[in-house]
This record gives sequence, C-alpha cells and structure tokens, in this order.
Amino acid sequence: MTEPLEVGVLGYRFMGKAHANAMARLPMFFPDAPEIERSVLVGRDEEALEDAADRLGFDSISTDWEAVVDDVDAFYNLGPNHVHPGPSIAALEAGTPVFCEKPLAPTLEDAERMAQAADDAGVPAGTAFNYRFVPAIQYAKGLLEAGELGEIRHVRGRYLQDWLVDPEAPWSWRLDEEMAGSGVLGDLGAHTVDLVRFLVGDDDLAGDIERLSGHLQTFVDERPVEGEEETRPVTVDDAYSAQLEFENGAVGTLEASRYATGHKNDHTIEIHGSNGSLRFSLERLNELEVHREGDRGYETILVTDADDPYVDHWWPPGHVLGWEHTFVHENYEFLSSVEAGSEFEPSFADGLAAQRVLETIVESDERGEWLALE
Amino acid sequence: MTEPLEVGVLGYRFMGKAHANAMARLPMFFPDAPEIERSVLVGRDEEALEDAADRLGFDSISTDWEAVVDDVDAFYNLGPNHVHPGPSIAALEAGTPVFCEKPLAPTLEDAERMAQAADDAGVPAGTAFNYRFVPAIQYAKGLLEAGELGEIRHVRGRYLQDWLVDPEAPWSWRLDEEMAGSGVLGDLGAHTVDLVRFLVGDDDLAGDIERLSGHLQTFVDERPVEGEEETRPVTVDDAYSAQLEFENGAVGTLEASRYATGHKNDHTIEIHGSNGSLRFSLERLNELEVHREGDRGYETILVTDADDPYVDHWWPPGHVLGWEHTFVHENYEFLSSVEAGSEFEPSFADGLAAQRVLETIVESDERGEWLALE
Amino acid sequence: MTEPLEVGVLGYRFMGKAHANAMARLPMFFPDAPEIERSVLVGRDEEALEDAADRLGFDSISTDWEAVVDDVDAFYNLGPNHVHPGPSIAALEAGTPVFCEKPLAPTLEDAERMAQAADDAGVPAGTAFNYRFVPAIQYAKGLLEAGELGEIRHVRGRYLQDWLVDPEAPWSWRLDEEMAGSGVLGDLGAHTVDLVRFLVGDDDLAGDIERLSGHLQTFVDERPVEGEEETRPVTVDDAYSAQLEFENGAVGTLEASRYATGHKNDHTIEIHGSNGSLRFSLERLNELEVHREGDRGYETILVTDADDPYVDHWWPPGHVLGWEHTFVHENYEFLSSVEAGSEFEPSFADGLAAQRVLETIVESDERGEWLALE
Amino acid sequence: MTEPLEVGVLGYRFMGKAHANAMARLPMFFPDAPEIERSVLVGRDEEALEDAADRLGFDSISTDWEAVVDDVDAFYNLGPNHVHPGPSIAALEAGTPVFCEKPLAPTLEDAERMAQAADDAGVPAGTAFNYRFVPAIQYAKGLLEAGELGEIRHVRGRYLQDWLVDPEAPWSWRLDEEMAGSGVLGDLGAHTVDLVRFLVGDDDLAGDIERLSGHLQTFVDERPVEGEEETRPVTVDDAYSAQLEFENGAVGTLEASRYATGHKNDHTIEIHGSNGSLRFSLERLNELEVHREGDRGYETILVTDADDPYVDHWWPPGHVLGWEHTFVHENYEFLSSVEAGSEFEPSFADGLAAQRVLETIVESDERGEWLALE
Repeated sequence: MTEPLEVGVLGYRFMGKAHANAMARLPMFFPDAPEIERSVLVGRDEEALEDAADRLGFDSISTDWEAVVDDVDAFYNLGPNHVHPGPSIAALEAGTPVFCEKPLAPTLEDAERMAQAADDAGVPAGTAFNYRFVPAIQYAKGLLEAGELGEIRHVRGRYLQDWLVDPEAPWSWRLDEEMAGSGVLGDLGAHTVDLVRFLVGDDDLAGDIERLSGHLQTFVDERPVEGEEETRPVTVDDAYSAQLEFENGAVGTLEASRYATGHKNDHTIEIHGSNGSLRFSLERLNELEVHREGDRGYETILVTDADDPYVDHWWPPGHVLGWEHTFVHENYEFLSSVEAGSEFEPSFADGLAAQRVLETIVESDERGEWLALE
Repeated sequence: MTEPLEVGVLGYRFMGKAHANAMARLPMFFPDAPEIERSVLVGRDEEALEDAADRLGFDSISTDWEAVVDDVDAFYNLGPNHVHPGPSIAALEAGTPVFCEKPLAPTLEDAERMAQAADDAGVPAGTAFNYRFVPAIQYAKGLLEAGELGEIRHVRGRYLQDWLVDPEAPWSWRLDEEMAGSGVLGDLGAHTVDLVRFLVGDDDLAGDIERLSGHLQTFVDERPVEGEEETRPVTVDDAYSAQLEFENGAVGTLEASRYATGHKNDHTIEIHGSNGSLRFSLERLNELEVHREGDRGYETILVTDADDPYVDHWWPPGHVLGWEHTFVHENYEFLSSVEAGSEFEPSFADGLAAQRVLETIVESDERGEWLALE
Repeated sequence: MTEPLEVGVLGYRFMGKAHANAMARLPMFFPDAPEIERSVLVGRDEEALEDAADRLGFDSISTDWEAVVDDVDAFYNLGPNHVHPGPSIAALEAGTPVFCEKPLAPTLEDAERMAQAADDAGVPAGTAFNYRFVPAIQYAKGLLEAGELGEIRHVRGRYLQDWLVDPEAPWSWRLDEEMAGSGVLGDLGAHTVDLVRFLVGDDDLAGDIERLSGHLQTFVDERPVEGEEETRPVTVDDAYSAQLEFENGAVGTLEASRYATGHKNDHTIEIHGSNGSLRFSLERLNELEVHREGDRGYETILVTDADDPYVDHWWPPGHVLGWEHTFVHENYEFLSSVEAGSEFEPSFADGLAAQRVLETIVESDERGEWLALE
Repeated sequence: MTEPLEVGVLGYRFMGKAHANAMARLPMFFPDAPEIERSVLVGRDEEALEDAADRLGFDSISTDWEAVVDDVDAFYNLGPNHVHPGPSIAALEAGTPVFCEKPLAPTLEDAERMAQAADDAGVPAGTAFNYRFVPAIQYAKGLLEAGELGEIRHVRGRYLQDWLVDPEAPWSWRLDEEMAGSGVLGDLGAHTVDLVRFLVGDDDLAGDIERLSGHLQTFVDERPVEGEEETRPVTVDDAYSAQLEFENGAVGTLEASRYATGHKNDHTIEIHGSNGSLRFSLERLNELEVHREGDRGYETILVTDADDPYVDHWWPPGHVLGWEHTFVHENYEFLSSVEAGSEFEPSFADGLAAQRVLETIVESDERGEWLALE
C-alpha cells in the first residue's frame, strides 16, 4: 500500500476553502483518486491559520513556505497574484508539483519564468482554470473535437458581475494594481481567455489568437475606504473588451465587467462554426445549448446524463451539480497526474499563453492599435 | 465538551450516499452543526455493507437494526418503502429520533402508526422531503409568508421524468407494487404534495387541500426482465394526475410521469396569488421566477445572494449550488433539532398528511369521483 | 373573369376588426385567394354600424340579418355566443357558407342543430378556431402526422390570463352566464380543446378524448358595476381544469384562468409521445420547442423559414409574424373553400365536438365524477 | 376636406412590399393618420412594375423618377444603396419630403450631401430605421429617458444571421461592393448603430460615440454563380465587430454576421446602467427584459399592454405584433410629419450620423487602430 500524497496549501480564504472542500470529497466520489493528506496549510497569520486549518481539515500549519515546498508531494499556490511566482518556482525547483491559481503571475515576465521552471522541473504544474472542468464545457469540447461545429467562425466570451455598480461601494485591495495585478482582466478575463483557447484553439477549429485590439476602462476613479473618511484611488480596470482574430480567420469579442447591473457571475461562451453553434452560461452550468448540422435552433441539453463527463461519479440524470464540483474534477485530474507523474492541463504553459493574451490586451489599449500575439 | 451524536443509517444506495455526503460536509460549511459520528451502517448483505461503510465513512456495520435503533442518538431510515414502519417505530419507542425517507410508509395505516409513535415519543421524527431545503424554495416560502403573493388562486405542480419512455426498457423492482408501494405517485408525487402543503398550506394563503380528483395510469403493462426471456407485469402507476380544491377555494393540478420524453428531473411548482406569482423548476434549482405587485412579468432571480437562505454557508453570489446541497441543509436542520431536542419539520405528521393526499388520489381514481380529504 | 365573393359579417367589435383586417390583407399576400368584397356589415345600432363599416371597409350596413344571410356568398357570424345559432342556421338553410366564432353555440343542443344544418346544407361551415393557423402549430401538426413524436402519452393545455385578478375589477357582460354562455371555459377552454383534438386526435396518436373529470371555479362572486354603487353577481366560471383520458390511454390536463397573475394571453400546449415532445406558447407564437428521437433536450425552433406553413407568403426568415396573421391564414383557407365548394376544417362538426367536451366538463363538475364522452 | 397625400415609391421588392403594406393598413388602425394615395410606383422594368403596382395597390407606374419626385407629396426611396443620393436630393430640391431606406448612402460624402439637401429643403427627410418603432424599443427609450437605468456603462449590440454559413451558397449582388456598398456593416450594422444612438445617445445617458476600433472580415472569398460554372469574388464584409467608447466613458461592443449558424434575424441590444439594465432581441420583439433598481434579476415584460407605445391601435394585451408592424408605426409617424410639416426622426441627419460611425469602423479596420469620430 502506497503512502498518501502530502499536500501543502498556501492560502486559506475563498480558494483555500474551495480546494480543501474538493480534496475532502474525493474519496467518496472518486475512489480511484490518489489518497491524499491535507498536510499543511501555509500563511502568515498563525491565529488565522490555526482556525482555518481546523475548519478545512489540515494536519498542521506553517508560516514558512520555503520549508513546505520542499517537504510536500504537491504544493497548491492559492495566494494573491504577487505571491504566485516565488513559492511556485521554489517548489518546482525542489521537484514538487505545483497547482497555482489564475492568473498565473503579476507580470508576463514572471509567468515566463514560472513556465520555464515548470519545463525544467518536468513535474505536473497546473494553472487553476477550473471552468474547463464543468461537465457541459467538457461535453462542448468533445463536440468541437469531433468536428460537430465544423470550422469556427465566431467566438464570443463575456464575464459579467455587478459588485461595483454602486459608485459608493467601498474600496478594496482588489482595486489596487500593486496588490491585485489587474482588475477584471486578470480576475475574470483570464478565465474567458483560457476557455476560448481550450475550446477552439485546435488547428482545425480556429487555431491560436493571432492579433487583437484591447480596451480597458475604469469608470470610478476613487472609492471611499470603509469606516474612514478618506477615499483611495482605483488603479485597476473596471471593465475590458477585446476584438480577436484567429489563425484561421475566425473573429471574436471578449468582455468583462464588475458594473453589469443584474449579473452576478455570468460567464458566457458562444461559438459559431460552419456546421453548428453552442452557448454556455456559468449561471446555468448544468446546461449547454447546441445547434448541430440539420438543426433549426438550439437544443437545450441538461448535461447530467450518466455518460456525460464526470457525471457518473455523482448522481442520477437531472440531479444538477454546482459550481464547487468543478474544483473536485480539477483536483481529481491534477492529483491523479501528480500520482502518475503525467502531464496535467491546463499547465503553466497554458497559464502563460493566457497571460500573453491579457498582456497584449493591455498593450493594445495603451497604444490604441491592433497588436499581433508574439 | 459534549460527545458527538452517534448516527445509525439503514440503507446505503442512492439515498445512503446522499445523506452520508451531507453529514460529511457539515463541519466545513456549518460549523455550528452538532458534531456527529457516522457510527453504524445497517443492511442485510455484510459484504456490500462493508464496502459501502468504507466508501461512505461509517465506523461499523450491522445487520441487526433492532439493536441499532436502541443504541444510536439518531436513526436514519433510508430503506425501501416497506421497511419504513418497523424500524422507525422501534426507534421511536426506544426514544431515538428518526429521519425517514419519503413516502413515509407503504400504507396509510402504517403512516398513521408511525406518526402516532412519533407523537408518543416526543423526539424529532422527520420525513425527508429535501426539496423544502432548496434555497429558492425557502426564499419562495418567505415571500408567501410575507403576503407578497396575496391570497392564492392557483397551484400547479408536476414532476416529469423520462426513464420509462421506451416500452422495451427493462422491468425493475420499482415497477412492482409489493416492493415499491406505488409508482410515480409515491416516488415523485409525494415530493410535489409536500411542497404544495409547505408553500401554500397556511390558512391565509390557500389552506389545506379539501377535496380532489385523482387519476392513475399505467401505459405499459409488462416489461422484459433484463438478461432473461420472460417479461414481468408492471403493477404500479406510470403517471398520475390530480385536480385539487383548497380550503380557500384555490384550485390546483398535480402531475407526474416517467414517460415525459425529454425531461430528466423536472419538478416544477407554479403559484398564482391575488398579488403575485412564482415559478420554480428543480432542473434550474438556483433560480426562482417571481412576479410581484406592480410587476408586468416574471423576474428571474438567482437565489445565491449572501442573505438568501443557507447561501452564506457556501460561496459568493452567483456561484451556484447543486441538488445535493438540499441534503446538507436538511441534515443540518434535522441534526440540530436532535441536538436541541426541538421539533423538526417536515415531521412524520407532514409525511402522514402527504400520504393521506396520495391515498385519496388512489381512492378517487378507483371510484372515478372527487373525494374530500378526511 | 369571375365576380368577387360578397361577404356579409355580423359583428364589428374585436372579432369584426380581426376578420376585416384579414380580408383586407389577402390580395397583397395571398394573390391566389378568391377575390372578395366586404359587402355588408350587420348589427343593431345603425350609427355604430356606419362608423365601423367606414373603418373596416364595408360597402354597406344592415340591421336585418335575415335578409343578408340569403344575399351574400359567405356569412361570418362574429356576434356574441347566443346569436350564433339563429343566423348561422338560417344562412345554411339558404345555402350560404358560414364562418362562426367560437364556442359554436350557447348550448350543446344549439351546437348539434348547427352542425346538423351544416351537414344538410353541404356548404362550407367553419368554426373560427384561429390557433390552428399559427405556422408553428401547423408545423407541429406535420411532425405529429409524420409520427415524429410516436404514440402520445401526455397532453397539457392551459390558457392563462390575468384581467380579473383584482377583486375590484368591474363587472362586465362576459361575467354573466346569460349573455356570455360561460366564462373561461367557452372563451379560452374552447381554443385549447380544439387544439388538443387537432393535434393528437388521430387514431395513431392519442385518438378521441374518452372520459374526463372537470372542475369549474368562481373566485369572486360579485363585482362592482362601473360608475354605479351597486354590485352584480358573477355567474360564470373564473377558472376551469380538467383531467382527460384518451382512446389510446394517453392522459391530459387542461386549465384556464383569468386570475393567473402575470400572464396576459398565455395559451400553452405541451405534448409528450413515445418518440418525442413539443411545447408551444401563444405569447411566443413564432417558436416551437421540439424534442425528437435522439435529442437530449428541446430545440427552440423559429418557425419562420420559407418552407414553413404560410411563411412564404410573408417575409424572409426571422421576420416574425403576429397574432393577427392567424386570421389571415384562416380567412384564406375558409374563403378558398367557399370558392372551391370544398370542405373546410375546423368545421361545425369540430365546433360541436369541442363543445361536447366543454359540456362534459360542466356536467362532470356538477356531478363530481368522471364522465365518458358520448 | 383635404386632398390625400400622393406618395411616390421607388423600389418594389422586399422593402416596397413592406412599406406598401404599411400604408395600406393605416386607415383601419391609425384613423388619425393622413389620408394617402399610393400614387406611383417607380422603377426601370415596366412589366415588373405593372405587376408590382397591381399587387401593392399603386395607381400608376413610372420609369422616370425625375418627373415623379417633383410631382408627389412624399417620395420613398427604397432602391438599392447606390440609388439613394440622386433621387433623394432631387426630391428635396423640389421641396418634396423624402423617406429613404438605410444605410443612407453608398459613401459618407453622399450621405453628407443628402443631409445638407434635407437641411436646405426644410421638409421632412427620414431614414428608415424601422427598429426604433418596435413598441418594446420605444418602451425601453422611455425607461432610459426617465433615468430608470441611470448613467450608462455598457452597450452591446449584435445582429446575427446565418444565410452564408454554407461556403457553397451562391454568389449574389449583395456580396459585391459596387452594387451593395458594403456587406453586413451597412445592411445590419446600420440598424444597430442607429438603435445605440437612439437609446443611449442623450448626454445624460452615454452621449455620442467618441472613438472606436473596427474590424471587418470576409470568410469566403469567392462563391459559385447559380447555374453557371464560374465563381465570382466576394468583395464585401461577411462580419464586422467594433469596440466603442462613449462621451461619458461608457464602453460598447458591436457585431454582425451572416455566418452565425442557428440565428435567422437575431438583432440584440443589451444595456447596463448604474441603476438598471435591459435586453432586447428582434426574434422576440414583443418582449423586453428589464432590471430596475432594487430588482435582483431581469423581468421579462410582454410589451403589449394598452398603454404601451402604439399598442392601443392594435389588439388587446397579449395579442402579439410582428415585424411588419414596425413599418406601420414608422409610416404613421413619417406621413404625419409630412402632413404637419414637422420634423421627423430618424432624420437624414441621423442617417448621416450612423453612416459616419460605419465609415469610421471601415477606416479603423484599414488602419488597425482606434479612431475618434469626427
């Protein structure tokens, strides 16, 4: 009998909870997943760490990530963006597989160093684009790969939230460029760019994004600090949009906003090909709308049948899954790769590729012109 | 520090897994839930039990429910219908709180005995109508109680599945009256009747169902036995419908089927009141459609805000929940009642009341006439 | 060159306008329709008639229907229900084709006399069930006839309006049994019953309705008279429901209401067969939702393609039609039958058959029991 | 009693039929509209003209537009794009009000000359942006003007068709730049740009479009000529997209395509403001989805109530209108302006403003950079 994999996790807030929950659920629903131990939870504030480790089921805590990355069988980097490069690269240099939240890094250069480190290490290094693991998205991927949509002509992606609609909503660290890296572009746009690459990036679909025009906008320049009389500047983007042109001539538009009144977490992908189309929205994540050759409209498919991706692990047809299940699937795949020593996708290379698109959007916005992806 | 509650569970298939999962998830998401131990899993086949106990996280197994019901702090009866009365009553007589799957019992008389036993025992005795614990349904209940829909005029409930559409689909124990008790009526109709009672049963809404006309239908009389050359008779209902009249004059229709081509698990409730209306479908369980006074149409509400029922225990707005979360909420409430010694609803009395409606539907169908609820 | 058909029309309100408009539009869009003249408009109030004839494009007016029915080539009876039998039978006895609004007659006996008169006359006698002439409904009919849905198991029809929700809404003649014949049953239910017969009445689909249970309800017993201090009693049904059983064992539910808060004119038909399903709502009359063999969900079809029923007469694909177009199609078919001397459906026999269902609903409600259709 | 307005119409195909039908329907539904005569139908092919005049109800035909524009009380220019400037300017110089189909002209210079001629003439000169006259759009305009959506942040417009999806679909004159002026940009994009200007152009909403990035794409470079062995080049755009920035900082994206598999005539507008949002799709033109302050989601409104724009002229609530009704409303407004000698909007100035946006999209695409609107 093999020893369980010891997992170290840096970060214990939203993402820490999402991944800890995913790990906790594996044995009951994915009995062939590797056995793991939530071994050590890493952070800076010991008291908060103790409390979180208790809630999230970790054996121990540490404030010294340098020691941890060496020690564990897999290292999860769920800290804020600017903490991604250092510990991730250190872990890889120690030969420890790494799973890192998105966007991969605060700068393109950091992302390149991280991808290089992953390459050099030759161990699984994953970027946490969890929306690849929605059953409906996997099902869509299958349709696309089987050529059911034909050659791709149009791609449309948008991610709409509304939590900054009120100009008096308080300032937060997410609105500060130093701390957050970027605004919606990294937080929401990274997801969309990855889904677009994942779904239509194959050469016989649309291929790579070849050139783009990007636009960033900040609607409210400063916001009140909660409980204080001062305001602080907003130094990140409140919304972005982009026009894309792909290798094969397909065109696309991307968008995200935190000012989309009435939308909570509306991540939408629409694709039109020469033989068919599909639509997906995260707020109805069990559904996929598909138009195939010979169809007249879209068929609304509930992707919860026993032979749909991952579904047989859960419940009978029609018993819908939630957002958090994407983390279980993602962890299952990543940890299985760690155990098998096999490659995992989305990899750091995928994270870097997405970042390159984001960076090009920023640069295009600054220059006011279309730019080719390098 | 108090001892954890020891829980014994009879049944380890679909419902066993759903409840075990729910219990497993309580500590991380409902830290104020009582601490529990999945103590003993009860059944007849030791090998299967061992295997299930391992997967579902139980400390031990037993094939002797009579010993178990005495021993544990709470007893879950998740066995088939005909096993509901004996162990449940024995547990109650031993002063052990009971949580029993729906429908409460194979006959109305059994249900009455069970409700009486619960009354006599004075401990929590719950019927597992989990759909009461969908956040959107709880939110709907709040609207109704606050009078937002006014006096109720119309109720419409239906539960559509499609797994028997094919007349060559194989025979199963669920199609045998002796084993299953009834067909769609008990399996699906029980849920609908409970939701209707829960949502509009208050006196200032529609009140009790006063009279009804019921109809049962079996479309395919016999089915092939898998792997054999024989067929076996279908002795339960494939579909039912009912017309209802409530205390206040409101009218309703109910329906369920396993022949509703294209519907997997479509449990729908629609209510029209003098001031507003609402609609809910289980296949989009994060949503509620609401029409309030002054509105012109229905507003599609994503019931995932922080102040929506149970949502603050989970994820930020727009991060949708799934079917299984209803079991977590249900277990949280039931186990909290067990710990506090307080009443739990839906109780055995609720289970009995639903059963009385189902039984009246059967009798009305036989007689071909409207019948008053006793 | 043939003479134009001279058409006489009794009734100049809502239905008068709808049919006059339909006739006026035929030449431009249905060039092969018979040439007609809106010859004479019939009623009792000369002044109102003059005004209406002017607006609706009639050559003359008359207060003497007995003279008119003899004189014209086709007679439209668009008067209130109690005026249907006399003039219609007189016209038929004079050998004049008749087109009569629904429901066919105030009593079953009247309807029988009218159908007999039509039989005896051997000229086209149509009942104005205009919803048969929605392109999406015709398209649905085609699917059903081609066996795309297989044998029918379930039918669901409902017609929801909301104009009586407010208990203080004023009394109107439509709420008086003597004047209106019935409430929702005749006004809305007649349409649903006809659509159900039209769509699934074939022997190899569901066949005839064999037995049913009916229920009528009046929620508000009296209402204020506008501008006066008195109230008047409501003597018709505010809502009805029915359970149906068809010849082949299929089951159905019907419903209508004027108290369905939030619904303006929501006439919905849902059908499940052994191979497929379909859904239609009048508020989205250009659409049909279809589930065919091999599909997983419903395909939402915009029934506006060039080869869809009647569509080539109008506009290019995606240029949606409205409610009134059903009248143009209906008039085209009826007047073409008049010119050709051929049969028209829905005929008086269809009107009678629908009425028999409505009457059985009433009787079943009174007796509180299921009744067989005679 | 005044003389009826004599109307001359150049063009007798799709648009000729749509406007002739609209004029024919005015008297019955808009009794306060000016009385008009469909006086003369103008074109080049006498035989075709005779036939069309007969079908469309014109008194006479002419192949000499120069004579006609002088003679009539209003001149409709429904010819192809390159025929817009000459006759329109001639009519205006003769003091004859003009109604011209969109896009206003083949080149920006032509459009400027036309707008100048309209200015000089001081008579009504309208551009036929009929979608302004959808009741739901008028209703949306009312909400926006009343400030219900607050300050605008996001605008999204797209117009999706699918008739060129098949690369073997035959060549048509619409694919030739000389004849058609442009592809989707002028044909579809013009409508979207006008709606955006109409809905959010007010200074306290979003104001004017200030700068943009445009993109045109041709997916299939040549197509077979029907019935011949040759192919001909496609010299227009198959799809376009644009990013917009408005005066107030609001951002927008526009798109159109003839390759959007599964979409027939899907013209969609979405707007997010600081207080609310709205969505509209032409394929469901009776509906508007509205999110107002305090709402949680979108309310789906059927814009068919008696007090909704134009609806009282037609049918009771819930009796839906079709695409062609927009032409009736448009003609009603234009002809009323002609009679009153008052201004009509959308004017030639509006047509020119839309054209300037389209032209800037083309130029931006060529240069590969953002451009300011002049």
